Amino acid sequence: MKNILLFGAGKSATVLIDYLKTLADNKNWNVTVADNSYENAKSKIGTSKNVVPFAIDIENEAARKQLIIEADIVISLMPPHLHYLIALDCIAFSKNLLTASYIDEQTKALANQAKEKGILFLYEMGLDPGIDHMSAMQIIHHIHSIGGKITSFQSHCGGLVAPESDNNPWHYKISWNPRNVVMAGKAGATFLENGKIKNITYENLFDAANIVALSNAETLAFYPNRDSLGYIDTYGLQGIETFVRTTLRHPEFCFGWKNIVDLKLTDEDKIYDTTGMTIAQFFKLHFNKNGFNNWLDEMMMTRLNAAKETMEKLMQIMEAEEEAMEEGELPEQTIMVVNEDGVLNTVDVDEVKENAAEMVAVKMNEANLSLKQLFYLGLDDNETLINIGLCSAADVLQFILEKKLVLAANDKDMIVMLHEFEYQLNGKTKTLKSLLKVIGKNNTHTAMAKTVGLPLGIAAKLILEEKINETGLHIPILPSIYQPVMKELEKHNIVFEETEG
Amino acid sequence: MKNILLFGAGKSATVLIDYLKTLADNKNWNVTVADNSYENAKSKIGTSKNVVPFAIDIENEAARKQLIIEADIVISLMPPHLHYLIALDCIAFSKNLLTASYIDEQTKALANQAKEKGILFLYEMGLDPGIDHMSAMQIIHHIHSIGGKITSFQSHCGGLVAPESDNNPWHYKISWNPRNVVMAGKAGATFLENGKIKNITYENLFDAANIVALSNAETLAFYPNRDSLGYIDTYGLQGIETFVRTTLRHPEFCFGWKNIVDLKLTDEDKIYDTTGMTIAQFFKLHFNKNGFNNWLDEMMMTRLNAAKETMEKLMQIMEAEEEAMEEGELPEQTIMVVNEDGVLNTVDVDEVKENAAEMVAVKMNEANLSLKQLFYLGLDDNETLINIGLCSAADVLQFILEKKLVLAANDKDMIVMLHEFEYQLNGKTKTLKSLLKVIGKNNTHTAMAKTVGLPLGIAAKLILEEKINETGLHIPILPSIYQPVMKELEKHNIVFEETEG
Repeated sequence: MKNILLFGAGKSATVLIDYLKTLADNKNWNVTVADNSYENAKSKIGTSKNVVPFAIDIENEAARKQLIIEADIVISLMPPHLHYLIALDCIAFSKNLLTASYIDEQTKALANQAKEKGILFLYEMGLDPGIDHMSAMQIIHHIHSIGGKITSFQSHCGGLVAPESDNNPWHYKISWNPRNVVMAGKAGATFLENGKIKNITYENLFDAANIVALSNAETLAFYPNRDSLGYIDTYGLQGIETFVRTTLRHPEFCFGWKNIVDLKLTDEDKIYDTTGMTIAQFFKLHFNKNGFNNWLDEMMMTRLNAAKETMEKLMQIMEAEEEAMEEGELPEQTIMVVNEDGVLNTVDVDEVKENAAEMVAVKMNEANLSLKQLFYLGLDDNETLINIGLCSAADVLQFILEKKLVLAANDKDMIVMLHEFEYQLNGKTKTLKSLLKVIGKNNTHTAMAKTVGLPLGIAAKLILEEKINETGLHIPILPSIYQPVMKELEKHNIVFEETEG
Repeated sequence: MKNILLFGAGKSATVLIDYLKTLADNKNWNVTVADNSYENAKSKIGTSKNVVPFAIDIENEAARKQLIIEADIVISLMPPHLHYLIALDCIAFSKNLLTASYIDEQTKALANQAKEKGILFLYEMGLDPGIDHMSAMQIIHHIHSIGGKITSFQSHCGGLVAPESDNNPWHYKISWNPRNVVMAGKAGATFLENGKIKNITYENLFDAANIVALSNAETLAFYPNRDSLGYIDTYGLQGIETFVRTTLRHPEFCFGWKNIVDLKLTDEDKIYDTTGMTIAQFFKLHFNKNGFNNWLDEMMMTRLNAAKETMEKLMQIMEAEEEAMEEGELPEQTIMVVNEDGVLNTVDVDEVKENAAEMVAVKMNEANLSLKQLFYLGLDDNETLINIGLCSAADVLQFILEKKLVLAANDKDMIVMLHEFEYQLNGKTKTLKSLLKVIGKNNTHTAMAKTVGLPLGIAAKLILEEKINETGLHIPILPSIYQPVMKELEKHNIVFEETEG
């Protein structure tokens, strides 16, 4: 009888626990779900004689070791810095270990020992990192096998709110670690574009104009992830010209988050005493301390002035047109108008009208959206008390996001992953797009929990069934790992749609 | 061996033909698909030894009678006015007849003969009418069975473009008879609201503010259908206070279609010679003939003036605010401003800013959208020749819609049906929403073809299997008809989602 040990029964564990439960019941295996809250572990499990909840303080060495000794395989959904304690024990007792986290330097040093012990440490086995690696490698290996040379690879992924639950001006709700949302992009980004390494600073990272098309009609914005370059070697794409990994967001989220960054709301330096402080009071104080008392007015004024100028020019043209008509002339396609320098100019009337109306609309929509988004976070919320003691603006922002951008009980989240390849084959340039969209069921069985949890659960099953037999430290880029896992993911409706061009 | 005869192999027949083909192959039945184009019928059928294409001029009595004599059941997807010829033959030869069309007066007169002959004439057996009747009756019968009294029923249905294919400013693509799109609403609408009969004229029918929520985040606009009142008796809802059947459209479609109606582009009176005429020339001529040379300018000017006025007021407030700040005062929540009558007023600054920015944005978006939509139809299209001879504005508009709002090969259409009930049960007011969303595969296997075709195909099967045994003239409001059909529809993913409140 096999024993699977899962550390962590948080938000992203729901679907994994359901999967392990079914597995345990079908195979008569044992599953232990260990969490620092017994109640939490218990509530996630429901009824199954093969699945046992367990309360553990992960830093309690004896208790931790005891659980690991009894396991055949260990899955850790703990915060990344706690994986290492578990990893050391797994080496000591020769146990396989699976996580959805990035490999850090400490862990890399354990690679040889894992290999020697004949066990598998499989990291980056969730969604992103995880499914992104597997689905990308499937395509990369295929293109290489037919003799293609990949010149560009852009890999986008985002945890979003599904359209049917998207009812706030941020077009975003929290479906994973809110701290990561606040901290996203702080280190700037590095990637490869047309053969050149590009660095983008935090201040320039969020840009609603960075757009990618999912279909003819659906677009999302993206911002590049921290450092993409390391994955060029990992993916075997040496010599590629463009390579970037990004995070997908609604364009209006990127627009608004640029305001958040500009307003230093993600700063960790200044400390506020939030005791008894409302959200509105925090904004006022923070704006005051950072010289932003006039920010909203200036933001509005800049756009109002630009809009007004265009509008007045347009009215001038239309009045000239009307005058011409009154003199019995038919409406003209083009018209003569005096420009700023007093020079007569020929302009296409329809074009001017169309562009001007759009320009004014865009400017006013920007002003409107900025206000809507900031008010939505509580610019005028004089009721909600923050009360989290001494903390930074970033901490308060996290508190606010968790309050205001909450995924309600029946809300659905959405995962979108899009790989865009360009490659040369037989002297021709080809393109390939591979798109995954997963919609969640509700706020516990999220698309996020499904896509993070299932790869781990499936890998655990395949390892215990000896269908995956690798040893040492790996991420899922080998066909022997990704092929059987992707096949099982398909059964759970995690299927990519490919478009070739 | 059973014989099914289908008249009509047009756009909406694809899914029905596929269904009948599978049925014929599984049961070793025969299907004849008769269309005025042999090629058309043949191309839809593909390969199946049990399905035969047939060319027919439906008004050729001998050929028509010959086909009907050999059939066990007849399905007609012909234009409504041609059903009657087929119906007379079905009476003569005692054959069951199914259509997706409304019952007309001529047909009503055949009810007794159908009953006497022991055959079933099942009309209104498509989507709308069809699935709307079945799904509504299922709920109505259920509410009545538990002792509830229905006080309000609003039944909405629309054939739309799926979000992933929605890439034009009309948010609409043609998925059914384009003539009906042009003519929609011409007779105005009559319905019951809070116990009073309401009449709405054509000119007031299209209103983007008539909004219905599909979920917390998704809304659509609707316009009431021709005459809803007749269905109150049909549904057994005598004494109901609010009863309306509507068509769903994107709010921006309703907004723009109001412009189309205002611009008399659906008129059938004036005749144009379109030989050698471009779309742009048609618009110019039509605007000129109807006194709309200034329409675009006036539409823009009204909105520009409203926007400008609000903008100037807002700037005045913001400047006053700035002055106060320069005098060392902190930004105030409220501020004193002089209104039009010279009176000092206290206003909430943030509220003014938020409302003003939104108001200006809305006005400019309206102007922008009106231009975008009309230009999208070809206001400046000097290339496309109309060349359909002498015809009305409505005919040209139909030509334009078919050209510009075409469902491309990989585009997906979408059917949305939403029933909203209010009822009294045990002294309490309850609500029930029932929502159906079906997304098409591409521009041949549309959600429209699926939802129109499957009820007909399934009913044909159930009648031939003697699982539906009614006789006479019916629409699908009897449990003996809708229960087995709805059950089969579920197997094809035509499933309503209910929300109670």
